[in-house]
Amino acid sequence: MSLIVVGSVAFDAIETPYGKTDKIIGGAGSYIALASSYFGIKPRVISVVGEDFPEEYLSLLSSHGIEIQGIEVKKGEKTFFWSGKYHQNMNQRDTLITELNVLEKFDPKIPEEWDKTDYLMLGNLSPIVQRQVIERLETRPKLIAMDTMNFWMDIMSEELAKTIALVDVLIVNDEEARQLSGEHSIVKAARVISKMGPQYIIIKKGEHGALLFGNEQIFFAPALPLEEVFDPTGAGDTFAGGFIGYLAQHQKTDFDAMKSAVIAGSTMASFTVEQFGTDRIQHLPQSEIDSRVKRFENLVKFSY
Amino acid sequence: MSLIVVGSVAFDAIETPYGKTDKIIGGAGSYIALASSYFGIKPRVISVVGEDFPEEYLSLLSSHGIEIQGIEVKKGEKTFFWSGKYHQNMNQRDTLITELNVLEKFDPKIPEEWDKTDYLMLGNLSPIVQRQVIERLETRPKLIAMDTMNFWMDIMSEELAKTIALVDVLIVNDEEARQLSGEHSIVKAARVISKMGPQYIIIKKGEHGALLFGNEQIFFAPALPLEEVFDPTGAGDTFAGGFIGYLAQHQKTDFDAMKSAVIAGSTMASFTVEQFGTDRIQHLPQSEIDSRVKRFENLVKFSY
Repeated sequence: MSLIVVGSVAFDAIETPYGKTDKIIGGAGSYIALASSYFGIKPRVISVVGEDFPEEYLSLLSSHGIEIQGIEVKKGEKTFFWSGKYHQNMNQRDTLITELNVLEKFDPKIPEEWDKTDYLMLGNLSPIVQRQVIERLETRPKLIAMDTMNFWMDIMSEELAKTIALVDVLIVNDEEARQLSGEHSIVKAARVISKMGPQYIIIKKGEHGALLFGNEQIFFAPALPLEEVFDPTGAGDTFAGGFIGYLAQHQKTDFDAMKSAVIAGSTMASFTVEQFGTDRIQHLPQSEIDSRVKRFENLVKFSY
Repeated sequence: MSLIVVGSVAFDAIETPYGKTDKIIGGAGSYIALASSYFGIKPRVISVVGEDFPEEYLSLLSSHGIEIQGIEVKKGEKTFFWSGKYHQNMNQRDTLITELNVLEKFDPKIPEEWDKTDYLMLGNLSPIVQRQVIERLETRPKLIAMDTMNFWMDIMSEELAKTIALVDVLIVNDEEARQLSGEHSIVKAARVISKMGPQYIIIKKGEHGALLFGNEQIFFAPALPLEEVFDPTGAGDTFAGGFIGYLAQHQKTDFDAMKSAVIAGSTMASFTVEQFGTDRIQHLPQSEIDSRVKRFENLVKFSY
């Protein structure tokens, strides 16, 4: 099954209570593509980087079977760079540096042979760019999933609404769901958002798990109780990658498949936070993924 | 199976964004006893009230099969009274009035025919009083569960530690677990607390569910996603009541039973918050309880 991932491929520099990194590979597109690559598919990435983006990072993606022809390299320009610092409880972070660079005028180009795709995952980006990708595809994908963030709600809520109206699955966190809907109750927020278009709404609650709404049903996936979160960067993107990867692999879009896809996403996210950046999801044996899915199963299983 | 419940039987006056009550029946002992009465047992309550406590409230307890001989009525004294106000998001409340009255010198008396019990649930009270009950029983119960709160950690942590060392199950919320253990991570907190004595630790996270630790295992029970919480008063006590009621009914204390007992507690708590005070758990048909347990099952069920 074909999957297109749209999202930033970028540099991150991260500081947590456990240490700090120099510029390492980051960006929603990188995390989503890496996570989804564990699901027997060859994710196709649409993104843009500058001339300064190291060949070794592109090779890292390729080595996972990720197709990188859709990553435009802009001569004489610089790659998007984000730097942030997490505090002791890991729930709050300060952004130290944001250099948009090539992202500022990102004009997504879809390689000709990619203009039909079964699955489309829109990573967090300007809703205008996200919509351009949908419009530039020759046919509508079987399933479009979309991530976004409060930043776009603050500065371009109308554009955001137009894009949300086009997608099947919206993935947001609890605070974003509240802002987008104007409802404090998560259940009410999901109902309001569903009226904006998406058939399925996923509301992530960080260490408290994630809720899936759709089809008049609710599914709850716990987060794995971890002793420590080493670096939360990319957890949400990895969740999206595991989620869309599972769906593309199983070629299903019903509620039962969505439930398992949320578990796949939670599983991949639980690895990401164990090390800096993408370190933990660069070399994951299938057996480790399988046994962690098993842990999720056991965590909630009971017979009353 | 015999169950003794120790806890306040009291007056509450509650204000939430949805309305307010006059003095109604409240107190940990009332909620625990009512909730556990739905599990085919006759809970025995040890408590104290003043002369002002209405006969109709005692009759309400009796009508549920609750044995009230252990509720001492102090002539010429007044019943414990708490009044509180919840804010819009229901996570914070202000205590408006606390009149200890009869609770100030509560000297728990165990009716002679109750001096052997299989199950003992110590509702939130002074840890000295909780320990007195354990010491005044002729034989150690098969299982002792205990609730407490940050107040006792603040003012008598040594006495609290002595009591915790005597119990099998400690039930606290996430903030209390953090304060008691000095650890921010819930997983680490549970490990520290388990070294204080209890074999099982339950950490409640309100709308985010509850975690059960013990036996080198972790179980996660979600909270039911609700549109609105009408009145959170007594949710924690009702949880404890459903928990201990399930165990007493099934006469089991292994990890599998604990898991189902946590679901039973979560189920009963999910009813309590739907109306003021004990209103919702005064007349619950078994069929409603059964179908809500089913909702908990469906909420987390997936086949990967």
